[in-house]
Amino acid sequence: MARCKILVIHGPNLNLLGVREPNIYGEIGFEDLNRLIYEKAKEKDFDVTILQSNWEGQIVDWIQDIGAKSDYIIINAGAFTHYSYAIRDAISAVKKPTIEVHISNIYAREEFRHKSVIAPVSLGQISGFGVYSYLLALDYIDYILKTQK
Amino acid sequence: MARCKILVIHGPNLNLLGVREPNIYGEIGFEDLNRLIYEKAKEKDFDVTILQSNWEGQIVDWIQDIGAKSDYIIINAGAFTHYSYAIRDAISAVKKPTIEVHISNIYAREEFRHKSVIAPVSLGQISGFGVYSYLLALDYIDYILKTQK
Amino acid sequence: MARCKILVIHGPNLNLLGVREPNIYGEIGFEDLNRLIYEKAKEKDFDVTILQSNWEGQIVDWIQDIGAKSDYIIINAGAFTHYSYAIRDAISAVKKPTIEVHISNIYAREEFRHKSVIAPVSLGQISGFGVYSYLLALDYIDYILKTQK
Amino acid sequence: MARCKILVIHGPNLNLLGVREPNIYGEIGFEDLNRLIYEKAKEKDFDVTILQSNWEGQIVDWIQDIGAKSDYIIINAGAFTHYSYAIRDAISAVKKPTIEVHISNIYAREEFRHKSVIAPVSLGQISGFGVYSYLLALDYIDYILKTQK
Amino acid sequence: MARCKILVIHGPNLNLLGVREPNIYGEIGFEDLNRLIYEKAKEKDFDVTILQSNWEGQIVDWIQDIGAKSDYIIINAGAFTHYSYAIRDAISAVKKPTIEVHISNIYAREEFRHKSVIAPVSLGQISGFGVYSYLLALDYIDYILKTQK
Amino acid sequence: MARCKILVIHGPNLNLLGVREPNIYGEIGFEDLNRLIYEKAKEKDFDVTILQSNWEGQIVDWIQDIGAKSDYIIINAGAFTHYSYAIRDAISAVKKPTIEVHISNIYAREEFRHKSVIAPVSLGQISGFGVYSYLLALDYIDYILKTQK
Amino acid sequence: MARCKILVIHGPNLNLLGVREPNIYGEIGFEDLNRLIYEKAKEKDFDVTILQSNWEGQIVDWIQDIGAKSDYIIINAGAFTHYSYAIRDAISAVKKPTIEVHISNIYAREEFRHKSVIAPVSLGQISGFGVYSYLLALDYIDYILKTQK
Amino acid sequence: MARCKILVIHGPNLNLLGVREPNIYGEIGFEDLNRLIYEKAKEKDFDVTILQSNWEGQIVDWIQDIGAKSDYIIINAGAFTHYSYAIRDAISAVKKPTIEVHISNIYAREEFRHKSVIAPVSLGQISGFGVYSYLLALDYIDYILKTQK
Amino acid sequence: MARCKILVIHGPNLNLLGVREPNIYGEIGFEDLNRLIYEKAKEKDFDVTILQSNWEGQIVDWIQDIGAKSDYIIINAGAFTHYSYAIRDAISAVKKPTIEVHISNIYAREEFRHKSVIAPVSLGQISGFGVYSYLLALDYIDYILKTQK
Amino acid sequence: MARCKILVIHGPNLNLLGVREPNIYGEIGFEDLNRLIYEKAKEKDFDVTILQSNWEGQIVDWIQDIGAKSDYIIINAGAFTHYSYAIRDAISAVKKPTIEVHISNIYAREEFRHKSVIAPVSLGQISGFGVYSYLLALDYIDYILKTQK
Amino acid sequence: MARCKILVIHGPNLNLLGVREPNIYGEIGFEDLNRLIYEKAKEKDFDVTILQSNWEGQIVDWIQDIGAKSDYIIINAGAFTHYSYAIRDAISAVKKPTIEVHISNIYAREEFRHKSVIAPVSLGQISGFGVYSYLLALDYIDYILKTQK
Amino acid sequence: MARCKILVIHGPNLNLLGVREPNIYGEIGFEDLNRLIYEKAKEKDFDVTILQSNWEGQIVDWIQDIGAKSDYIIINAGAFTHYSYAIRDAISAVKKPTIEVHISNIYAREEFRHKSVIAPVSLGQISGFGVYSYLLALDYIDYILKTQK
Repeated sequence: MARCKILVIHGPNLNLLGVREPNIYGEIGFEDLNRLIYEKAKEKDFDVTILQSNWEGQIVDWIQDIGAKSDYIIINAGAFTHYSYAIRDAISAVKKPTIEVHISNIYAREEFRHKSVIAPVSLGQISGFGVYSYLLALDYIDYILKTQK
Repeated sequence: MARCKILVIHGPNLNLLGVREPNIYGEIGFEDLNRLIYEKAKEKDFDVTILQSNWEGQIVDWIQDIGAKSDYIIINAGAFTHYSYAIRDAISAVKKPTIEVHISNIYAREEFRHKSVIAPVSLGQISGFGVYSYLLALDYIDYILKTQK
Repeated sequence: MARCKILVIHGPNLNLLGVREPNIYGEIGFEDLNRLIYEKAKEKDFDVTILQSNWEGQIVDWIQDIGAKSDYIIINAGAFTHYSYAIRDAISAVKKPTIEVHISNIYAREEFRHKSVIAPVSLGQISGFGVYSYLLALDYIDYILKTQK
Repeated sequence: MARCKILVIHGPNLNLLGVREPNIYGEIGFEDLNRLIYEKAKEKDFDVTILQSNWEGQIVDWIQDIGAKSDYIIINAGAFTHYSYAIRDAISAVKKPTIEVHISNIYAREEFRHKSVIAPVSLGQISGFGVYSYLLALDYIDYILKTQK
Repeated sequence: MARCKILVIHGPNLNLLGVREPNIYGEIGFEDLNRLIYEKAKEKDFDVTILQSNWEGQIVDWIQDIGAKSDYIIINAGAFTHYSYAIRDAISAVKKPTIEVHISNIYAREEFRHKSVIAPVSLGQISGFGVYSYLLALDYIDYILKTQK
Repeated sequence: MARCKILVIHGPNLNLLGVREPNIYGEIGFEDLNRLIYEKAKEKDFDVTILQSNWEGQIVDWIQDIGAKSDYIIINAGAFTHYSYAIRDAISAVKKPTIEVHISNIYAREEFRHKSVIAPVSLGQISGFGVYSYLLALDYIDYILKTQK
Repeated sequence: MARCKILVIHGPNLNLLGVREPNIYGEIGFEDLNRLIYEKAKEKDFDVTILQSNWEGQIVDWIQDIGAKSDYIIINAGAFTHYSYAIRDAISAVKKPTIEVHISNIYAREEFRHKSVIAPVSLGQISGFGVYSYLLALDYIDYILKTQK
Repeated sequence: MARCKILVIHGPNLNLLGVREPNIYGEIGFEDLNRLIYEKAKEKDFDVTILQSNWEGQIVDWIQDIGAKSDYIIINAGAFTHYSYAIRDAISAVKKPTIEVHISNIYAREEFRHKSVIAPVSLGQISGFGVYSYLLALDYIDYILKTQK
Repeated sequence: MARCKILVIHGPNLNLLGVREPNIYGEIGFEDLNRLIYEKAKEKDFDVTILQSNWEGQIVDWIQDIGAKSDYIIINAGAFTHYSYAIRDAISAVKKPTIEVHISNIYAREEFRHKSVIAPVSLGQISGFGVYSYLLALDYIDYILKTQK
Repeated sequence: MARCKILVIHGPNLNLLGVREPNIYGEIGFEDLNRLIYEKAKEKDFDVTILQSNWEGQIVDWIQDIGAKSDYIIINAGAFTHYSYAIRDAISAVKKPTIEVHISNIYAREEFRHKSVIAPVSLGQISGFGVYSYLLALDYIDYILKTQK
Repeated sequence: MARCKILVIHGPNLNLLGVREPNIYGEIGFEDLNRLIYEKAKEKDFDVTILQSNWEGQIVDWIQDIGAKSDYIIINAGAFTHYSYAIRDAISAVKKPTIEVHISNIYAREEFRHKSVIAPVSLGQISGFGVYSYLLALDYIDYILKTQK
Repeated sequence: MARCKILVIHGPNLNLLGVREPNIYGEIGFEDLNRLIYEKAKEKDFDVTILQSNWEGQIVDWIQDIGAKSDYIIINAGAFTHYSYAIRDAISAVKKPTIEVHISNIYAREEFRHKSVIAPVSLGQISGFGVYSYLLALDYIDYILKTQK
């Protein structure tokens, strides 16, 4: 069986993780987060591609190009979560199971962060578990794959 | 180190799981779900108590009595998610890290299900991963415990 | 053909019927109402069970336990009409044709009474005909049974 | 005692009943519906007049002219239900007990159909019982007349 | 003259008073609060019954059973304040003068706490005076009784 | 100088004036009202045409046909005031100075009566002066004509 | 019969009438307006007192002191129309028939001017007739007095 | 192949086209518009019927009678666009592909014109192209017919 | 220990107490109310200053000047309660514990009276107890002083 | 006369046309669509430039650079339609007549798609005619050019 | 050339500047602020008048009297910013270029402070720069004067 | 002391300044504006970097890269002001004092321009002073630096 291909997308400002606002996002840096994802992927034998951009168009392109060739998409769209109908449409168009993750609990923050325009087209949402939100997404894929075997 | 004590609460109508509306909630039955949780807990060596009630007051009582003596609370409050400020206040009062789980993606369903009054006082939310939503909550606790060791 | 089994549920404060607020609810008492329902059921040869509770959880339990074994549910959820998504989910889960009744015309009263969270999962609604609202619900079941014969 | 005079008004597009959209309105045609009403009226010895119009002004005129001379008005105002304050005022002005009926459950359809501007000036509302909604209205009048005798 | 009978109801989570969240609710415990109420009642020669429940249905029952036989009801409905139309209806039905109290100033807290569905059917509201809110309610009854003598 | 031509339009249900709801609309009947208008017009030497209809389309036609040939329009659009954008557009199209009148004070009645879709295209509004509202409109025209002489 | 006493109150910025914004308020100056009112009052033999203030408190005082001793109050509350509940309460308290007037058509201007907090406690409203709005108010009082004679 | 039958409906006040408000609707008159439609229809060999009414009921009747026997309906419902759920239901009932046209760009005008209650049951909408909006609707039908041949 | 200095402020129209609208505010007059307050203050040995104004600016001045030198402020801001952010800011600025009182239950009256802009900066609110609302405020201060001794 | 220069802009995800979601967007592919546009342009002798981007900034740049040198802009802004005020401002700034097109009927889809922030600055909108929406835009330009010759 | 005359108005509670709430408004006192303004004015050779009032009516009077004779108005309306349409109308009436200033960033504070009813009639707004907000307003006037020379 | 480093960012469409819409933005061109900024910076001895982009992602990148190394950020985010939570988060993340500027008074324009999502994370806002808005931002920095010396 081919290795499961997973596209992990980090949205705007996530590259600053750990450097800034540790009170909200924790002290683990962006490089640390990606290393954790890679290690987990290696452990599960997943083929994971990790990308970050502050550019909405770039993220749409990646979903269309790389996402469409992946088995799963894991996305933390950052602030785009709340208004990017373009990303929503891209997810909807490529029809790949997509897991929305958030480092902080978006429902315990400002009102405008309570609404995700991506959620209705996603498989599910994991919000508030720090960098583990990403790892739990991988755990889920692992459960599914084991079930389907 | 003492075994981690976890209270798992199922809210109203979750006891009907698997018997009804498999298109939304999947085909795994309520007993199957609980067995999966127990197995996972055993694997992780967690001390888990699983309770279900259709009665809001009962859930508040459990959070106060059992939740207050647990290390973590995992709650799928079912329909109470959307209006039970009493459960919210109980969670808030016992000050135990609480993980909100949902079997279905509440953001892809009716408008009134998009709002969780429990989310702002929870650690995080896992929504849409079927019965795995509960297991991912346990996985998260496992990550944290391993990190803290 | 087996007798048609019907569960009639009275929600909170309906047990005070006739004793109080006759200007809104009429002068017929709770016992009178139930006797009228029993007489009508006898006339139509229906097997009817009448229950009343001020407890939301109790009503959810009854719908799950007794409602699921009935052919029809007739419910006057009282104040729960306006916010109990738990009762809504229970009705939705047991998949039995449910008739929502109200003694007073809820649309001619306070704004908050204009919204029924139960209506969208009910077969129909009868509102404003005093105690006859219940009898009309039985009449409807009678029509249907006669048609289906 | 004089026979009870009842005005039955069908609003816009109800003349198409049965011909179109049977998934929502059932397969019984408009003529069938009226025959059912007449039969029921005959059985109860009611003097019923049935009228249909797609014209709001016509309905207001009928309420003023015929409704004012009737004992009861039964009205399915169709789409006018949701915005015709002119019909509301006419009902309010003639001060005859008015029963609002709907074939489909308006609370399980589009948002704009949840609001009835006629309900606050009606005696009660019967919604969702197919053509039986009209017959139940007649049943109610029968109950009342028997009680008042 | 018969001693004035007063029913004091504490809603959900108030039993945790003093143990938790002293920054909001003060450091006086639940037992202390009740003792203060009893002492005050003794001083004023009131016959007071104090009850607490996390169960909405229980509170409705108490209002119907005990409240209906009391001269006054003093209620801190806790979180039920904001959504329990069932409690509102019970208060409205028993027609006893009811005083709504809150330990914290609900208007200086979260938006959802600003709305009381109980207030419109209460005599008055006392909010924000810590445990003294209850004592002030007793003081008010005392004023009235003295005036009426 | 040619006599000033004025079109007076009464909207739906105004023909019932005096017969019904005297508590709101006063005891003067529809015929009395029209006679008062004619007398005033005679006194001022105005050429006035008075029309009443329960039909929105009829009123639009009259505005287009007769209104367009008049110097002023005085309109009490009744319930159409609150939703007839067709009448609004007709007034706007014929570009004749239009005076909106109401017998009762629409701002002291139901919420939905507070909004007039006709007001923004009218010259002015006179509301709440009983049948005198119409006479004041004529008085205004008289003032203007005297000023312009 | 005693002469009818009328208090005319001009609210904030009306003293600038004619000097400024003639496109909205016309070219007649404040002094001209008052002279027109006095002339009209003389003609009708009314005892009129005209006052103007930019101070909300002053207007409340006048209503309490002079208004309470008058037979009618005519008020153009200017911008206070839209938010001064203090003036509303004063009008409501003195219980004198009050006529609300506006020079411009407030419904054809900015959204915030569409709402009058004074209207619900006024007898009626005259809006959009320039300085004649005041004179029409006097005309109305004249009609009433003649009717009551 | 039978000629394509098309019903063109003009709503209220469109008969005034060209005569009034040329700044919004252009200088082409109503007769000119209809001639352009007939010419275009002749060129495309369409069998077109053009009707105009200021009466909502008339338009509903036409949709039911003539529309139901046509292949396409082109409708400019004028002000009815914004509130006539009766016309919406008629379109929905006859199940003929319906094209909504507007002469002016309704989204660049008053807020209330931004909402079309007809749009959700129409095939598509053409707004803002003057009289060409109608011709483009015919062009579309031509494209479809050519494709389907 | 110095006597406790308390500033009592009555807002607009409260000077009319007892004279008008006894159905809402009771029959006790303004002078009676103040005498009751003075008597109570004397009994408790408080140094109380009572002021009334219909002028918002006056109340702001008093809070700044006298309130700032007082130990407590008791304020019934009347209609200013609902919109005077200036009074709110003054209370907030002088940082003295402030008790908001209302004679009638503002939550059982018009919608606009349900919102207090002063409440969020006040210590607590007492609403609906007639003139006793003021006395309860004094009782509260007495409790606090006794506790702190 | 110089050939008419037209800029056609496709917004995000339109490059996936035909490949995905044929139920909404039809089965014609993106290349097919562009070929149809080019053919139509050739037929009409228009000089058309077709561009697609998932990047909002790119579209703004194109409008500024190429749009400003074109005679007409035809834009299907995709999801940007609903929130890109930057594109709106660019259209507004270059002052070229702009035609907004949509393949699907945006008013028959999700609520958020009903609002176009581009519509108020566009000449007109064509929505719901599949790929023909673009061709109709070209037809319109053709009509205008023929008229202006 | 005559010296530029500038009216600087401080609204309610600004006289308490520096004395209270230094966390929001900084530590510079009211006298210090005014001295800074005078010094700046002297440096620029402006003729500045500085006034403060807690009274809305006073501010309206000053705008009418002194503002109308000034070249510029600089206003920090304090809490009046959010609701005083009377001040708005005064500014609008005197037609002098008005600069709205705020010491704190009103957009980073409570929701109700985000709305300025004065902003739409002002030239511009400077918010959040402490006492420098006033000086920047003077700097702006200086730029303009230098440009116009 | 090192020269103060300031990043000036112009958002979408500001590069068209002066070329287009001079009625709103004035006649000074984009190059002129930047020259004015440079001259002012030179005068104050500031090290200023000026950048413009129509691309949201580019602006986020610049804030992260250049902004993070600057002492101050001055940003006119153009249309992004109203919806770019990504830019907001970037400003919030780099924690540099940021001054929001607007050439036109955004509060006197369309409703959607009244809301700035950037304002709550900015130090302050300067809106409506034409190109001087930028210079005033520099003036403010100058004041601060002089104060801190």
